Amino acid sequence: MDVLQRIEQSLEAAITKGMGDDSPPLLQQAVRHAVLIPASRVRPRLCLAVAMACGDDVPAVTDAAAVSLELLHCASLVHDDLPCFDDADTRRGKPSVHRAYGERLAVLAGDGLIVLAFENLAWHTLRHPERLAPLLMIVGRAVGLKDGIVAGQAWECENRVDLGEYHRQKTAALFAAATEAGAAAAGRNPAEWRTLGANLGEAYQVADDLRDVAGNADAIGKPVGQDAVHNRPSAVAELGVDGALDRLVGLIVEAVDSIPSCPGAEKLQALVIGEMQRLLPPPMGEDFMHRLAAARG
Amino acid sequence: MDVLQRIEQSLEAAITKGMGDDSPPLLQQAVRHAVLIPASRVRPRLCLAVAMACGDDVPAVTDAAAVSLELLHCASLVHDDLPCFDDADTRRGKPSVHRAYGERLAVLAGDGLIVLAFENLAWHTLRHPERLAPLLMIVGRAVGLKDGIVAGQAWECENRVDLGEYHRQKTAALFAAATEAGAAAAGRNPAEWRTLGANLGEAYQVADDLRDVAGNADAIGKPVGQDAVHNRPSAVAELGVDGALDRLVGLIVEAVDSIPSCPGAEKLQALVIGEMQRLLPPPMGEDFMHRLAAARG
Repeated sequence: MDVLQRIEQSLEAAITKGMGDDSPPLLQQAVRHAVLIPASRVRPRLCLAVAMACGDDVPAVTDAAAVSLELLHCASLVHDDLPCFDDADTRRGKPSVHRAYGERLAVLAGDGLIVLAFENLAWHTLRHPERLAPLLMIVGRAVGLKDGIVAGQAWECENRVDLGEYHRQKTAALFAAATEAGAAAAGRNPAEWRTLGANLGEAYQVADDLRDVAGNADAIGKPVGQDAVHNRPSAVAELGVDGALDRLVGLIVEAVDSIPSCPGAEKLQALVIGEMQRLLPPPMGEDFMHRLAAARG
Repeated sequence: MDVLQRIEQSLEAAITKGMGDDSPPLLQQAVRHAVLIPASRVRPRLCLAVAMACGDDVPAVTDAAAVSLELLHCASLVHDDLPCFDDADTRRGKPSVHRAYGERLAVLAGDGLIVLAFENLAWHTLRHPERLAPLLMIVGRAVGLKDGIVAGQAWECENRVDLGEYHRQKTAALFAAATEAGAAAAGRNPAEWRTLGANLGEAYQVADDLRDVAGNADAIGKPVGQDAVHNRPSAVAELGVDGALDRLVGLIVEAVDSIPSCPGAEKLQALVIGEMQRLLPPPMGEDFMHRLAAARG
């Protein structure tokens, strides 16, 4: 079974276990709409890649960690798209949850996905209780009030914003958690894997800002130009396209260099670089690869 | 230290640990506004009462369980009050979170409180890892997509609603969790304590419906007549005031009779009955006590 298939099956299983046939029918539909659509699954794939590099000794725990990351990511997208935030009509090429099912079910689906992310961790660690608290704390921190997604998103409600802090919390936090959780799920020291995830997360946000100015809505599955429309902090607004591309290259060089020595290190490096190229519109992706080759000598 | 003081201190500690000084200032204020205001704390008090009846051998775990219930309750209130649901101006005698801080911070404060509820469980069970998964599953189920608060609230978005199911999920679920979690936190079998909580939860909802028609906004700290305004399912609409009072008495008789034999049983019975009387407007509370005395012979 390939990695993406493994993730989709785990997501489907979590949602099926998390909702009974008796759950409110529209809520069931809204939750499935939010999660079970074609998506890159970049966070759970990163988690699995690290866990596999670390031995993946209890695959069920790895899968639970990966699923929790994706469910929390989906929850944040559903709430981000709400009328009071981005008021987005589409997400991943489909109507956003609030457009398809209304604002109330979008709020509830997001809430329920947060709860399910934590429940699913507990369900799959019953035979390895010592791994639950570390995983829960890694994942909780990534999305929480202190320096997780909720904190990051809340900076949009403040007059003064530190761009680095904003990106770090809103996006990098869940990537850092993906690598940490992958290591922790496999019983390894998560701290050694934090830099990889944190850098990738920041890189992903920079790539997203670049896509927002350079992409087209059909190719990336959501409206473009939203940062400017909503006057949101953006690496492109701060550094320009050229500066943002250089920043992206610097982050990726640091990220791949931080990978701890392990059998899967080279494969992981290639995965990381390929992922970034894939995220950018093709001409920009080629530019990125040239700059990266130059930077790595 | 009395029980309420113990709860307030644990809530304050959880929020302080859960948010750094560097968290977005308005988010910090919104979260404190949502949680740290005078409130009955009925769910955590019920959790503590059961844990104490069961021996309360690890008070830090009991406190964490109690805090998680109250944080999740507060999160549900903040989201319930949103414009897309009740659009409530006030809550607990103060402006609702979205009125005071805006809709975006209300969504985020609710999300963050859900995350914090689970994080706080992990922080306080590190020395008792075997108690974390059971507690997490009890609490998660009570608020989740299957038959928890999220499911209950989602029934408001359906055309057909089973009133019993709706009340059971929207309110009774967290009460059932309060008694179960109190027992589980003290290392006892939670299943024996479920009926007490489930019945109390349903009773609490019936009492709430009675307050909605009979109370006044100043005394109960939120607008009255909201069920009729929002055309929500209500025990009073279904049974009338007289029928709803009888239903309340029946639930409480069953609840107090279900308390397992333990040193604190009588104290717990008195607490349960006093709590219900206190919830009702005084004349209705007296009526309730008369009917209860008659029913118990």
